[in-house]
This record gives sequence, C-alpha cells and structure tokens, in this order.
Amino acid sequence: MSAAGARERFLITGGAGFIGSHFVDFLLGAPGTARVTVYDNFTSGRRWHLEAHANDARLEVVHADIHERDRLADAASGHDVVIHLASNPDIARSANEPDLDFDEGTVLVRNVLEAMRIGDCRTILYVSGSGVYGDLGETEAVESTVDIRPVSTYGAGKLAGEGLIAAYAHMFGFRGYSFRLGNVVGARQTHGVGFDFIRKLKARPGVLDILGDGSQSKSYVHVGDVVAGMMHVLDHAGDSYDVFNLASGNYITVREIADMAIACLGLDDEEVQRRYGDGPRGWRGDVPVIRLNTDKIRKLGWSPRHGSGDAMRLAIEAMLAEPRCWQE
Amino acid sequence: MSAAGARERFLITGGAGFIGSHFVDFLLGAPGTARVTVYDNFTSGRRWHLEAHANDARLEVVHADIHERDRLADAASGHDVVIHLASNPDIARSANEPDLDFDEGTVLVRNVLEAMRIGDCRTILYVSGSGVYGDLGETEAVESTVDIRPVSTYGAGKLAGEGLIAAYAHMFGFRGYSFRLGNVVGARQTHGVGFDFIRKLKARPGVLDILGDGSQSKSYVHVGDVVAGMMHVLDHAGDSYDVFNLASGNYITVREIADMAIACLGLDDEEVQRRYGDGPRGWRGDVPVIRLNTDKIRKLGWSPRHGSGDAMRLAIEAMLAEPRCWQE
Repeated sequence: MSAAGARERFLITGGAGFIGSHFVDFLLGAPGTARVTVYDNFTSGRRWHLEAHANDARLEVVHADIHERDRLADAASGHDVVIHLASNPDIARSANEPDLDFDEGTVLVRNVLEAMRIGDCRTILYVSGSGVYGDLGETEAVESTVDIRPVSTYGAGKLAGEGLIAAYAHMFGFRGYSFRLGNVVGARQTHGVGFDFIRKLKARPGVLDILGDGSQSKSYVHVGDVVAGMMHVLDHAGDSYDVFNLASGNYITVREIADMAIACLGLDDEEVQRRYGDGPRGWRGDVPVIRLNTDKIRKLGWSPRHGSGDAMRLAIEAMLAEPRCWQE
Repeated sequence: MSAAGARERFLITGGAGFIGSHFVDFLLGAPGTARVTVYDNFTSGRRWHLEAHANDARLEVVHADIHERDRLADAASGHDVVIHLASNPDIARSANEPDLDFDEGTVLVRNVLEAMRIGDCRTILYVSGSGVYGDLGETEAVESTVDIRPVSTYGAGKLAGEGLIAAYAHMFGFRGYSFRLGNVVGARQTHGVGFDFIRKLKARPGVLDILGDGSQSKSYVHVGDVVAGMMHVLDHAGDSYDVFNLASGNYITVREIADMAIACLGLDDEEVQRRYGDGPRGWRGDVPVIRLNTDKIRKLGWSPRHGSGDAMRLAIEAMLAEPRCWQE
C-alpha cells in the first residue's frame, strides 16, 4: 500500500514531551512503521516518557536542539514525515518574556522547514493552536476565515508557523497540515490547568489558587484523540497544505476543573478554599472563551472519542497514577 | 491638539529607502513634526534619497542595523511613532534563499516591537502586503477574513509580522496598524516590474525579457498615496490594532506596463521584441492576479488620488528623470 509506504519513517521533534511520547507509543504500535526518530533537547521532554520502547530498535533518540540546524537536517534526512511538536510549552510565561514564543516557537518552525528542504523530507504535521484566532468570544472559529489579530505572542507564533508551512508547501512541494488544537490533556502532561491544580492541591490541600475568576470556558481534547486525529488527516487529506481545528466539540469551565481535581484527589469539597483571581483572563494574553468548530475534520471521517469533561478526568487520573509527573 | 501632539516624533526604519524617504519628505513638510529619525542599514537605502533635508535639524540619521537590538531600543526611546518599513525589498530572491524573508522580515518586526517596548514607544505603522492573502485569483481580498495559506515566504513573513503587532497591542498596550499594500511605485523605486523594465530597456533597447506570460494583473499604488493613506489612518483609526488594504482600486497587466515603459522611453513599439516566460507566474511564489478590496480605508474617509496606470506612468517618468536611480 503506497499510502502506508509513504509514511514509514517518522521524525518527531519534541518526541520525548507530553504529546510527542504519545505519538511514539502510537507509531511503534502501528503496522508499517519502520523508524521513529525522537529529536528533543529534553528541556520539558523526559527519558521515562519513552521507557516502554527501550528495547525497540526502530526508535532512535537524538538529544539535540532545533537551533542546531545542521544536526537537524542530518536527522531529517531519510525520513518521510516530520511531526513538529517542539515549542515552548509554558504559554503564560511569555507575558513577561515575549521573545520566548518567537525564539522557541516561530524560529523552530523555520529551522524545521529548512532542515526538511535540505534533508529532502517533505511532509510535515504541525501543532498549531486556537491562539491564531485571537479572542472571538462565543463566536465559533472556522478554519478558512481568520481575522488576523492574535492576543498573545503564543498565538502570533503559531500563526507565523502556519504561514511558513503554507509557503513551503507552495514553493518547495511540501505536503503539510496544521492543527489548531483545543487544550490537550492526558497522561504525562507537563503544564496546563488540570496539572497545575493537582500540583497545588498536593502541596497544600486546603487552598486552591485559581488564575482568573474561573469562568474561562474552553475545549479540552484528549491526547489520544490528538494523535488519532492528526494521523487520520495524514492518511486522508488531499491538499498539499491544509489546516484543521482539532478539539472535543464541547466545553468545560475552569471552575468545573477545580471541582474535578478536588474530587479526584479524594478531598472534601467543602474543606478546600477556592481563591479566585480578578476578571476572566488567567494571564495576559489568555483567551477566556474558546469555541472551535470541528465540522471540517469530521467531514474527513474522524471524530474525537472523548468530550472535554471526560478527557480532563482521564488526564487527572493518569497524572495521579504516575508519581514521576511531579518530579522536576 | 493632542492627536497631533501625540505624533510629533517619528522613527522610520528603512527611512532612507524608497517608501521611507517619501515619509521623511511628508513629515518634515507637515506642521507639528518635531523630530524624524531615520534608522537604516543602507543596504537598499541611499543617502541621496534624503538630500533635500540635509540642513533640517529635525532629521537625524542612524546608520545601524535592526539586528542591533540595543541600539534600536536607544533610538526608539523618545519617539511617539515608529514607521516600520525596513525589510528585504527583493521578493523574488527568496525563492532561492527562503531564509531571507524571515531574517530580513519577520525577525526585524520582532526586534522593532521589543525595542519599542523597552524604549517605551508604543505606536507602530507597519507595511504588510497583499502576500498575506495567498493566491485568491479574481476573488477580492477583504481584511477581516484570511484563509491562512500564503504562497511565498514573503507573504508568510508579512503575516507573521502582523500577528506579532496584534499580540503586542493586546499584551503591552501598543497602538498598531498594518497596511496590506498593492505594489508601491514612484520616484526612487529600487525594485519592481516598472523599474526592472526600464533598467533592461536602457541596457538593451531592442529586447525586453518579461517574467511570466505578461497576463499578471495587480494593483499598483503611488507612493504618495501610501504615505497619505497611512498617515490618515494614524490620525483617524480608533482601534488599538487594526489592518487596512491600501491600494489603487483598479488593476493593470504586466503586458500594459511593458507597453508603457517602451513608450515612456520613446522607443518604437514595433522595434522592441517582447520575450515572455512560460505561465502566469513571474517567479516561484508570485501571485499573478491580486484583487484588494479598499472599502475599509475609504470608509475611514480616505481614497487614493491615483489609479494603477496613472501611478505607474508617474513612477516611470520620475525614475527616468533621476539618473541616480540607475547607479548601484
């Protein structure tokens, strides 16, 4: 089968990270995968994320940085598909370090594309985000119409990455897909609101400090659905470049997530004092309400297995079951 | 008048270049301008572009590069408005050097914004381009809806710049306007199809090599209209961030421009052999048909003085009248 043959060898940037390690699990369990190369600088990636595959000869781990372009081009050579996940995972941090999303976001995409061009590897899956839409409030975001006004350097960096991939698709014959993800949750998370709540409650069970007033309402998507949805698009999308929202299709509030975290830890709900922040935004650049239309990927024949609440509960349970999530 | 007072001191990156020097002319001729600082690395900027103002004490020229961020932050300090024009002017070149639009485009915007944030100067006018729309064919491009798929690294770079400015407006209280320009023409051009045709015909009057099949149809906008339109928006737009198409509203073909160049040089039309390329694209990443809707800026009370043909003829006449245009 030529379609399967064309995607036998994968390079995953950030492959030792949260989402990356789930791609490794999936690909090494799928028929027809000849090689999986993880390219990671291990700033947020972890060796133990890959431990299940320690004896699998198809897995190679390159401990290197994407800023080392020659090394990256060498690594990309001999692969069919790059799954580009590496980027700054701490979105809130850039409010004080606005260079971060550029240097550890946009620049990485540029380097990955150039490395692929030089290394003659021309298919890329790219994790973008809802940040490209800016703040639309209750309006559902649709892929084909964007009013270009991101409200964060995170969103601007993702937007820039998408544009570069579209340009390389046209100019240099790349095949590329960008995915505007909801908030991804699941085992081995290293950031995010659920992770943050559990961390805080483990340290101090009687008090929970919440960023913003708790009314933030977003789509949370399970990492298993992210991997499955992106691979479905790789196998079924026709265009040389395209973009898809990938989310659970429903929404939960930060307040609900706090309740869930407290319940999952077995704490007495009434014994935990919630301390809310002012206003709906969790941090400067946060978008408090996100509505992602998912018709496009559904029309391609794929839909998520988990809704937002279900995904978050699974994520919290998985985090609690793994003590190494809580080690620095 | 506080609005005028708020825009007394201007820093112009690329201020010695084609468009930049017209801003210098305009601002030093306008009431209320206290200071104009030109920040230019003189790769395509020229000293003689500014010679009319040699004795004007309000003009300062800083010969430096935008990659020198500390110098740029020093320069930005004490200014009210930055007009950011500096960028790679040779769009076609990036087909072979795809890093160019990133390193001499997107990175410059990032550096300018950071320098402004550090230097506490928070209003920016940004020259974007029609490239952000990708290839829409005969469909008129409207500002509020973009299907993010630029077909060139030039377009991707402009898109990235817009996104960064929108993010800084939201996160750091900037006021910013992006302008998606038609092809800008006028005195002191250093690139572009009209310039290119005159240069070729002066070197070899009997033959004109044309990139593409000549059917390319775009909007050409006179540099005087660009300056006037951008200043009008600065004075009249209300939002903290906004974006405007700025074009002449009508279109001419490359074939018509060839005829015009031949006529303006006084050559016998039938004596010049036109040698066309294959297909409609002038180069890899060229968009052969561009239609820019200009309702938004017109609703703000401004409209261009010159149509595309008029603008191009004025530009060619001005170029022919200035021998220094043709010196390296």
